[in-house]
Amino acid sequence: MFKEIFENVKTKGILVHNITNYVTVNDCANIILAIGASPVMADEKEEVCEITSIASGLNINIGTLNKNTIESMFLAAKKANELDKPVLLDPVGAGASKLRTNTAKDLISKRKISVIRGNLSEIRAIMESESNTRGVDADIEDVINYDNLEERVAFAKECARKTKAIIAITGQIDIVASDKKAYCIYNGVKEMSRITGTGCQLSAMTTAFLAANKDNQLEAVAVSVMTMGLAGEIAFKRLSNMDGNASFRNYIIDAVYNMTPEILEEGARYEVR
Amino acid sequence: MFKEIFENVKTKGILVHNITNYVTVNDCANIILAIGASPVMADEKEEVCEITSIASGLNINIGTLNKNTIESMFLAAKKANELDKPVLLDPVGAGASKLRTNTAKDLISKRKISVIRGNLSEIRAIMESESNTRGVDADIEDVINYDNLEERVAFAKECARKTKAIIAITGQIDIVASDKKAYCIYNGVKEMSRITGTGCQLSAMTTAFLAANKDNQLEAVAVSVMTMGLAGEIAFKRLSNMDGNASFRNYIIDAVYNMTPEILEEGARYEVR
Amino acid sequence: MFKEIFENVKTKGILVHNITNYVTVNDCANIILAIGASPVMADEKEEVCEITSIASGLNINIGTLNKNTIESMFLAAKKANELDKPVLLDPVGAGASKLRTNTAKDLISKRKISVIRGNLSEIRAIMESESNTRGVDADIEDVINYDNLEERVAFAKECARKTKAIIAITGQIDIVASDKKAYCIYNGVKEMSRITGTGCQLSAMTTAFLAANKDNQLEAVAVSVMTMGLAGEIAFKRLSNMDGNASFRNYIIDAVYNMTPEILEEGARYEVR
Repeated sequence: MFKEIFENVKTKGILVHNITNYVTVNDCANIILAIGASPVMADEKEEVCEITSIASGLNINIGTLNKNTIESMFLAAKKANELDKPVLLDPVGAGASKLRTNTAKDLISKRKISVIRGNLSEIRAIMESESNTRGVDADIEDVINYDNLEERVAFAKECARKTKAIIAITGQIDIVASDKKAYCIYNGVKEMSRITGTGCQLSAMTTAFLAANKDNQLEAVAVSVMTMGLAGEIAFKRLSNMDGNASFRNYIIDAVYNMTPEILEEGARYEVR
Repeated sequence: MFKEIFENVKTKGILVHNITNYVTVNDCANIILAIGASPVMADEKEEVCEITSIASGLNINIGTLNKNTIESMFLAAKKANELDKPVLLDPVGAGASKLRTNTAKDLISKRKISVIRGNLSEIRAIMESESNTRGVDADIEDVINYDNLEERVAFAKECARKTKAIIAITGQIDIVASDKKAYCIYNGVKEMSRITGTGCQLSAMTTAFLAANKDNQLEAVAVSVMTMGLAGEIAFKRLSNMDGNASFRNYIIDAVYNMTPEILEEGARYEVR
Repeated sequence: MFKEIFENVKTKGILVHNITNYVTVNDCANIILAIGASPVMADEKEEVCEITSIASGLNINIGTLNKNTIESMFLAAKKANELDKPVLLDPVGAGASKLRTNTAKDLISKRKISVIRGNLSEIRAIMESESNTRGVDADIEDVINYDNLEERVAFAKECARKTKAIIAITGQIDIVASDKKAYCIYNGVKEMSRITGTGCQLSAMTTAFLAANKDNQLEAVAVSVMTMGLAGEIAFKRLSNMDGNASFRNYIIDAVYNMTPEILEEGARYEVR
């Protein structure tokens, strides 16, 4: 499946409209360029509908949301829905404030979201009936490991059924699930969590995969997650003993830039459940 | 011409006030420091006039404009005009939304702009009498190559005449033109377009060159464009087979940091038309 | 003193809430992760109190302040005061605009600030009874060197007495002072000023040290300043002749990532006055 999904991103002239946080936005732009697509960032409500109209897909990331950009998120997502363009939601910090939790929930209930990507704590927060304020990182109990994988997969499929979106939960093991089928992905290294925004970058890149593969969305998201994880492994091997998280960040984007379907075919580690 | 123009940037204590997008702002700050000037970023309308007053020049980039920052752009440009400080406009995405096209056009008609720097599609968009929504990257027909160079140069000179600004159109070949004279610059590598913000960085750096060489503006802009292109060539040669656009980004800024008039004298490739 | 202070940052699960500028925010996030803590950025007034409540400390940086974020700074600092969480203020550009000077002064007079970190010009600006607009970088006379150190130390202690905060003035020599005791720190290299945001990064990291060492704040701030300076020295030695400020930036964060109490014990150069 890798070859076609991958080449589609590189050859279709994909433009990703990002309404995203100002912390990791530069890395998001560079990873979209690394994979062969183009980024555009625009969050003023007066222009977001026009920008979404010329884009291939919309990436909404609530990492530094504010009242103005929230309005823009809803407007842009509405336009994307009208034009049948895929929308990815990254509910950064859902559970950490009511504003984040409620914005994410409202976007899911009032707009058609194609993919929701977050850590387990964030996904839990948006599935709960009440808004509980919790942390911003995945809770300590919210790990995904081999022992609880069956239960986590069932949860992901249930989320997919309830939200009508593909659910991508990233953690020690990543799960990409529709209501019926789940990819469990074993790529990646734990040190990636010591870099700010690897999740944001994955969401941005995934929107490109999604927009380039509208008829094969579950696989497109899975391949994007594998690409990020494998790039993390390649970059980690490249680290010298003087390197730290800043160089690691650069090396991951570099590895995405140099990724090929062949490298991916050989390095991807996953199973379908 | 290189030596004096270059040394002026390094020795005059140049401070560039940037009202710019949040995507590439960090790279803009670092490239201004790399060339030997100092950056300040400020976009709140209550303070922009004071900041422009202490700065040597103003760089306006509409990459992630919003209603508040648009107001600040007009206020700061007015103050710069009053104090006779140079203003550079980077009309990022003009043509992609009416808000961008109209903001750029209004700034040009209501304020004195010293230099407009963009790709050919952006420059076309702001020269058209109507606002047509198009893409964010240069249109496929909007290339500059040896076959159409004469025509492109004539267009640039006409833009310069109409806007009373120096026009810098960057592409496969770069053109820096007044109404009477144009530098055609052959430096740079095409892979620079795989990095976010090389255009924004060039605009930021060019404002420093401009402010340091107020009596020699056309040449100052041309030298800045050559510096960026040559830095791109030097950085590209430095790339290992594991490097990609993230390392390339760093290497370009590094190459600007290490640039000298001598390297530039030897590496600059241009002709005057 | 290094070992315990250092390990506390790494082991206590410290979360730093940053209301900071969009220029250097990514580097601030990565240096907080490099030292072993976690960052969260949030500046919308509707959520800042909740975010401060779950955080261990608050870092306020006025580098690109605007009306909305100023309101958020006051709200978040109030909540931090109520919950007895440390607040660090980085008065970026105080003296360059009345808005910056007054915002910094108001925060100091209306909220309890644990630490103020800036260059000498910024600290002077907030200590003056009148608001004079000056530059954004340290004034040429505002150097700290061996000849004027005694006088600078006395000034820092006086600031500490008046503001009831620990004062960290960074420059050629860094001074970290309470009203009674001052650390004079000789680490660092002057080329660090050619990178945007080394000051912002220090403030972000210092908030993590502070939150992890609430009973030993003066020493915690001093160790943070030494860590940054020593990381700068280590990174500077690593530079090849093709490297410039972009690579230097990455290497400093890398060096923080690889810092240990042992390296610090050996490399820290300071005296107590």
